[in-house]
Amino acid sequence: MNQEALKKIALSVRSLSMDAIQEANSGHPGLPLGAAELGAFLYGEAMKYDPSDPTWIDRDRFVLSAGHGSMFLYSMLHMAGFGISLDDIKCFRKVGSPCAGHPEYDADLGIEMTTGPLGQGVSTAVGMAMAETMLAAKFNTEKRKIFDHYTWVLVGDGCLQEGIASEASSLAGHFKLGKLIVFYDSNDVTIDGPTGISFTEDVAKRYEAYGWKVLKGDMYDFAGIEKLVAEAKADIDRPKLIILKSMIGKGAPTKQGTNKVHGSPLGEEEIARAKETLGIPKEQKFWVAPEAYEYFGAYKQGLESRHARWTEEFEAWKREEPALARELDVWYSGDPLSEVKMPTFAPDEPLATRAASGKVLQAIAAAWPNFVGGSADLTSPNVSALNEVADYTPENRSGRYIRFGIREHAMAAIGNGLMLHGGLRPFVATFLSFVDYLRPALRLSALMKLPLVYVLTHDSIYVGEDGPTHEPIEQLASIRAIPNVLVLRPADGEETAEAWSIAMKRKDGPTVLVLGRNNVPFLKKDDPDWRADMAKGAYIVRDTKKTPDVVIVATGSEVSLALEAAKLVPAKSVRVVSMPCREAFLRQPERYQAELLPKTAKIVVAEAGIAQGWGEIAQRANIFSIDRFGASGPAGDVAKHLGFTVKELGKLIVK
Amino acid sequence: MNQEALKKIALSVRSLSMDAIQEANSGHPGLPLGAAELGAFLYGEAMKYDPSDPTWIDRDRFVLSAGHGSMFLYSMLHMAGFGISLDDIKCFRKVGSPCAGHPEYDADLGIEMTTGPLGQGVSTAVGMAMAETMLAAKFNTEKRKIFDHYTWVLVGDGCLQEGIASEASSLAGHFKLGKLIVFYDSNDVTIDGPTGISFTEDVAKRYEAYGWKVLKGDMYDFAGIEKLVAEAKADIDRPKLIILKSMIGKGAPTKQGTNKVHGSPLGEEEIARAKETLGIPKEQKFWVAPEAYEYFGAYKQGLESRHARWTEEFEAWKREEPALARELDVWYSGDPLSEVKMPTFAPDEPLATRAASGKVLQAIAAAWPNFVGGSADLTSPNVSALNEVADYTPENRSGRYIRFGIREHAMAAIGNGLMLHGGLRPFVATFLSFVDYLRPALRLSALMKLPLVYVLTHDSIYVGEDGPTHEPIEQLASIRAIPNVLVLRPADGEETAEAWSIAMKRKDGPTVLVLGRNNVPFLKKDDPDWRADMAKGAYIVRDTKKTPDVVIVATGSEVSLALEAAKLVPAKSVRVVSMPCREAFLRQPERYQAELLPKTAKIVVAEAGIAQGWGEIAQRANIFSIDRFGASGPAGDVAKHLGFTVKELGKLIVK
Repeated sequence: MNQEALKKIALSVRSLSMDAIQEANSGHPGLPLGAAELGAFLYGEAMKYDPSDPTWIDRDRFVLSAGHGSMFLYSMLHMAGFGISLDDIKCFRKVGSPCAGHPEYDADLGIEMTTGPLGQGVSTAVGMAMAETMLAAKFNTEKRKIFDHYTWVLVGDGCLQEGIASEASSLAGHFKLGKLIVFYDSNDVTIDGPTGISFTEDVAKRYEAYGWKVLKGDMYDFAGIEKLVAEAKADIDRPKLIILKSMIGKGAPTKQGTNKVHGSPLGEEEIARAKETLGIPKEQKFWVAPEAYEYFGAYKQGLESRHARWTEEFEAWKREEPALARELDVWYSGDPLSEVKMPTFAPDEPLATRAASGKVLQAIAAAWPNFVGGSADLTSPNVSALNEVADYTPENRSGRYIRFGIREHAMAAIGNGLMLHGGLRPFVATFLSFVDYLRPALRLSALMKLPLVYVLTHDSIYVGEDGPTHEPIEQLASIRAIPNVLVLRPADGEETAEAWSIAMKRKDGPTVLVLGRNNVPFLKKDDPDWRADMAKGAYIVRDTKKTPDVVIVATGSEVSLALEAAKLVPAKSVRVVSMPCREAFLRQPERYQAELLPKTAKIVVAEAGIAQGWGEIAQRANIFSIDRFGASGPAGDVAKHLGFTVKELGKLIVK
Repeated sequence: MNQEALKKIALSVRSLSMDAIQEANSGHPGLPLGAAELGAFLYGEAMKYDPSDPTWIDRDRFVLSAGHGSMFLYSMLHMAGFGISLDDIKCFRKVGSPCAGHPEYDADLGIEMTTGPLGQGVSTAVGMAMAETMLAAKFNTEKRKIFDHYTWVLVGDGCLQEGIASEASSLAGHFKLGKLIVFYDSNDVTIDGPTGISFTEDVAKRYEAYGWKVLKGDMYDFAGIEKLVAEAKADIDRPKLIILKSMIGKGAPTKQGTNKVHGSPLGEEEIARAKETLGIPKEQKFWVAPEAYEYFGAYKQGLESRHARWTEEFEAWKREEPALARELDVWYSGDPLSEVKMPTFAPDEPLATRAASGKVLQAIAAAWPNFVGGSADLTSPNVSALNEVADYTPENRSGRYIRFGIREHAMAAIGNGLMLHGGLRPFVATFLSFVDYLRPALRLSALMKLPLVYVLTHDSIYVGEDGPTHEPIEQLASIRAIPNVLVLRPADGEETAEAWSIAMKRKDGPTVLVLGRNNVPFLKKDDPDWRADMAKGAYIVRDTKKTPDVVIVATGSEVSLALEAAKLVPAKSVRVVSMPCREAFLRQPERYQAELLPKTAKIVVAEAGIAQGWGEIAQRANIFSIDRFGASGPAGDVAKHLGFTVKELGKLIVK
């Protein structure tokens, strides 16, 4: 280890961070200044990567869970030779710069995920580390290790206070993720002041309780950190938390060690004094120590050789294992290994869409060998079991069904991590009403454009007896609200299968499948092209011979409700449109929209949820919705209690 | 302790639970059967309460955090003499029964809160326990203890896996809540099977790490539990976790100890066999042991005497401390002690609404001595400090400012608990984008009709540099979606003060104050009755002399944007309406709506968030919204990048 060079690198992190944040007049110097040495150590000594091939499948992953310290990451990526230029850094926090306020996922630049909302990074990293074990179990042979990398994380006090991190850490311990190494930048300061005002637990003991190995050291002792990392790697059965005592904003002469240095520029004066003390040329902005560039220039060659050796191994492996090699290609292609053999659904058999989904899942699991996922302890009610595959366990890394425990938020973050790692196609499942528990992670799926599939069952007041806490009312509207989330609420078994097809084809964002608990009839669909039209968001289930007087737009279980209601008003010519995806429909050309919903007809909407968002389709008075919390009782009674019945819908049609 | 009677009580819990769940054909027998003894011990031996006065202010609180085990609670409340009749229990899970699927808050019946979504109960209980210390510190004297009660909680494996419980437990340890006693029904089974498949951490060690005292015992050993509770009470400085090993569904001969007994009726056959084994009359449904009724008949007298002794103390205290006694009345009245002296805002001083809120907070804190709250480590950016009060700490229970740490979810649940306890008027604060982290607790505020105030700042893309993770886009729509949540987005300092007034007057649900980070101008308001009209949701800020051609409806910082845009089109007669609360406006009589938004005018909406929900006010093409994630950059640049500028709005007006 060339400590002198590493020191120069750390110095350059401080220099770049101070100046970039000052230039942007916005940002968080506390972490990059306080943890600069760790950046130098990770990128200059510990991590396996190749800046010329940033998405190399066997690279180590680094997640800056404390995303506000983004200049830490940009400084390191720049010096290490990734595609972050000094000019990019000069544009820190400017529109269009890859150096955004918080890191935004761009694997080509070495930014492994979007962080900023605390706790997400470390939780997502658990998924990345799980993915490594899964791919290793599948593709490594006695002779060759194709997947053998570490997942490194940097967390601060904030991440460790967030519940999601607790959930994910507990699961990481359970799964014995030995190649997950989390550094805790323990500087005893948060925005409000010293951590002592709100955070006095014994973090080390807590992580030991989760089954982690906990190590302690000093942020500014390279030799010490090297020793700790060696120790960490020697223990292959437990995730590691390495607690490094540090000083926030180290190097800022008057502000270091206080919350003043957390989230605001240091100010010109403080920077000038810092540069003087640290030995950074005062007159130069965005200074990088020549020794740092020099070091990485040489170091990069070592990294490339290492990568080249891996490539040799990989080529040999491909020759030895052609079938596996072909499968690896498929796993990374985003396509299934074989065509999905969707189940068929009998016209006379009522079936809950969750049950239909359960059947479809088996077909997908068979066609996609890299389809992995599970439920937050609701396997049976979610009908999310994969019947032909084993559970993922510490003993069986080839297992594909994941028992997340009652940890919805960590589940979704881990799903993001499985996806981000590459090679896998994950899904997660819980009740729709509990989507609230995982929402911040779902938002990150959308922001990072990850096609994670969310299976959310028990989608309305038809949950019945479990009552208002378990009956979604506003959840549908609230997830439709998130940009880039595709929300599909299928109305029968066939639509459910089609919804799954759409979800598995999607490449640029998450899909939420909203499924019902109770049986719904098979729909006889008047539109012969209903599958193609469903992808447009809506299609005609039941048409009328003449121009319709009324069009009922419905989703999920309300499509059959609408069909029943239509029967009540034989005098009216009623068309029923199933609209599994409102947002997709609203993006269609006006012609398609008008074809389904003629301007001359009265448009009625029926959905067992709030009216919000349907105002673009129908007048408020014609929206048959539930705009209050539900109640506990048999589903039919609850519906009646809320006036959400066929009869009431019938009345609305003729009103 | 009359163990024989307690056994009969436990037996009756089993009897009632089995039968009620079978009758409902739905429910969760696992917990009530497995933990029946604890119910008997708590209500029959340990807890201080009075069924004739269920809302007695110095009662012990009991929270069934594992809400699915609701029959445990109903059985106990029935036998202990609360207003739950046997007929109510016979109607378990029927519409209108107080015995809902999951407990629904009704203090008059002894149901201290709504539970079901896991982790909420124990976290909310932390707030209740904090409230006790606050009221004790305020009102107890050397001579008399007016507040001196315990908060008891029953959690299962699920609650302990949820991140919110981790957050709240860490804080409970930090705050040294010695009178919080949590029982952990440790039965090693969850819905998916044995807990070993996903939950192998050392819970005891984790709670010790939080600073809790952890005790272990056997659910079916009354003497042992008694000893543990004595030990727990002796330690006054730490919250307690008492881990009781138990068997899920104990008494169900073939299903006990497995996940089969968690969430479905036992079935007639199993019940018959259970009754036989347990010694419950087979032919009788909803049987309660006569000894149980008898025991509680006598026990109740003891409870009433205890309450009477307290009342004597209380009366003596009132005589001794008339000023304190008057203040106690005020604290429980839901009104301030003195009129709130709202700050005034200078017409020529631009001010961010978060800053205005910061001023208002001081006025409220002065007028409401029971106003308590704080931020999830964002005190300075939220401008949520209470300048004249001290922090709440273990050493200073009179402190009113709460340092929640970076624990948004626990913060909201604790806010619910502070409110539920009675006597306090709490608020909580974080960034609007992080409302996603606390959403399940906000939903419970709404469901329980608790007037908790949420201060959510940094309300739009004008956050700027921090980028898309910190820029709310869909959050406004998503919180408006929750029934019974009053969302107010004020446009200037005066509106902010008015919004706070509305929030503090509200008694039947939470209010969310959505506040901006950046300065906005003081609004000259054309409507002389704007304050009264603001309560209706919207009022005219700038009117036109003639009938308007265009009405721009805007909220928050977009009101000033609209005023600027109106200037760009002098040819048009443009009215600007500020609509701090869309939902309130939509509830107004059509006449008021039409008065503000004449049918003849073109209605344009401007809000820096998604269009969803505005379809009821304006046509989609006339909604000036942001329907994608934001970007990192100076606020003005981000707005420009997204086309969200005065100029673009001006174009839309004339289009």
